[in-house]
Amino acid sequence: MQSPKYTARAHTNIALIKYWGKLDQDLIIPMNSSLSLTLDKFYTDTSVFFDSTLKQDIFRLNNKESSSLKVTHFMKVLREKTGETRFAMINSENHVPSAAGLASSASAFAALALAASRAAGLVLDSRSLSRLARRGSGSATRSIYGGFVEWQQGSDDATSYAVPFEENVAWDLSMIAVVISAKQKKISSSVGMQRVVATSPYYSAWRKTAAQDLAAMKKAIKKRDFRQVGTIAEENAMKMHALNASAHPHFSYFEPASLQVMKIVADLRSNGIFCYYTLDAGPNVKIICQNKDIQTILAALAPSFSQERLVVAGPGPGVKLIDKP
Amino acid sequence: MQSPKYTARAHTNIALIKYWGKLDQDLIIPMNSSLSLTLDKFYTDTSVFFDSTLKQDIFRLNNKESSSLKVTHFMKVLREKTGETRFAMINSENHVPSAAGLASSASAFAALALAASRAAGLVLDSRSLSRLARRGSGSATRSIYGGFVEWQQGSDDATSYAVPFEENVAWDLSMIAVVISAKQKKISSSVGMQRVVATSPYYSAWRKTAAQDLAAMKKAIKKRDFRQVGTIAEENAMKMHALNASAHPHFSYFEPASLQVMKIVADLRSNGIFCYYTLDAGPNVKIICQNKDIQTILAALAPSFSQERLVVAGPGPGVKLIDKP
Repeated sequence: MQSPKYTARAHTNIALIKYWGKLDQDLIIPMNSSLSLTLDKFYTDTSVFFDSTLKQDIFRLNNKESSSLKVTHFMKVLREKTGETRFAMINSENHVPSAAGLASSASAFAALALAASRAAGLVLDSRSLSRLARRGSGSATRSIYGGFVEWQQGSDDATSYAVPFEENVAWDLSMIAVVISAKQKKISSSVGMQRVVATSPYYSAWRKTAAQDLAAMKKAIKKRDFRQVGTIAEENAMKMHALNASAHPHFSYFEPASLQVMKIVADLRSNGIFCYYTLDAGPNVKIICQNKDIQTILAALAPSFSQERLVVAGPGPGVKLIDKP
Repeated sequence: MQSPKYTARAHTNIALIKYWGKLDQDLIIPMNSSLSLTLDKFYTDTSVFFDSTLKQDIFRLNNKESSSLKVTHFMKVLREKTGETRFAMINSENHVPSAAGLASSASAFAALALAASRAAGLVLDSRSLSRLARRGSGSATRSIYGGFVEWQQGSDDATSYAVPFEENVAWDLSMIAVVISAKQKKISSSVGMQRVVATSPYYSAWRKTAAQDLAAMKKAIKKRDFRQVGTIAEENAMKMHALNASAHPHFSYFEPASLQVMKIVADLRSNGIFCYYTLDAGPNVKIICQNKDIQTILAALAPSFSQERLVVAGPGPGVKLIDKP
């Protein structure tokens, strides 16, 4: 017997205040609260139905049968939560404007959480959906909402979820993603943050400074103070990457070309073009800017990076159903 | 009336445990103890005599009249200490195998301290010489001695000086300096460390971790454990640079090519060639290695860096007079 099929679309998000470190590995409770902007250009469409004839979950990604421990684990959690006993047919499609490196588990698990819970007969409110998505991937917690989103760390499964901070972002803010490498990162974010929590002498200071950055960021967003938003985001990102440099053994996600982009941004800024950068667990650089400066920034990047490596995105919406029975 | 002329030679040193931050800006009392290796290939020869007909100190660097606020300040301190009232004629020559970027204030002020104190009629013991050199530049404190040298931070002018840790280094240890840029750094080490002390949330943790690294490094040197020495040095350097990434505003001395060298070293290491890197307040990378691996490492660097940019050095001696009346 088959359940009805639901299809959800979720957009990825970029953290302006980073999540780096877990209090609980299994439940994915973070060590600090974070804040992100959901983007319009990068999203995942996922359809799910349960089928009693299946002997295991079947996961197709971009029309190719695939296997993912994270998906298997998530579906197990979902069945426990919903009482659903059948296995599922999962079809996922990642929409990223270039072939390279910006697909994210954030949009993947936000879309899967909505589609799978509905197919299992459950209508969850956004908070419960955010808690469910968290079990798949930390950053997915935030992709339930559009615009600026805060993931309140909480202390357990019930209290750790995202809330919209400013869902309808009606201001001039864009991101230029500079794709430097599409290769799988050597040290996954999971492994990286675990090593940092266990070994970095700077980690407890990070938790304090991240909390201060979050408070300052919320004020800056409320005031629509673009330069403050950019400055805080860039400095928070650098403090996060400083943790990796201080871990034992130390590691880094930066590549030479990442530094090249950072230098271009710093030069633009000293010439009065206010833009800022942030990086996650990989070498790609995301430039936070205002719409009026996009062409200037793209022109400054053009001698070093081909057009396919430069993707402009704006604020995007929260997760929603795009197809249902 | 002229004083006798004295000429001193001092070698530069590379810190394996970094000095980063001052307790006292004027006296140059550091916030943490440090440990270095004096190198044989980079040195400064400086001759000094005092002359009652001079209206100011005259400073010639590499046969060119020069002006340096740091030298002027140091000579003022020296006259206060010695009771000398005349101005001095100072001739300095920097010996660096390539024209590029590795001259250091460490060798400069160690040589100047010895030559100028003798010309002023003072015969200082090594400890007093180390304290005097410290007034010119922090790292000069260590260049009084050869081999492995510890700068004990102390708490005031009397108690902050270097001591030899292992002066006659009779073991297999070399450094390959990779010259990436000879340009003046944008942020001097003085300005950089001051900003870090004032703004980095990680600074107090750095002082603790640097003290632990120093203790571990001393043990590793005593045990002649090359891999430990290299690992501790590399990690300590990365923790120092992590401070810069966490400062407000953040800054970095790395250039894309610095990361390229770091990657080459990491790759060599994963292929069983044990070598390690350290960086100071600039983009040049110093590779710590054993003599048997020098050719392999040079070969790995050769496709990216021309021969003039690669300088091999070994342990060097302390400061000494090379000419006297």
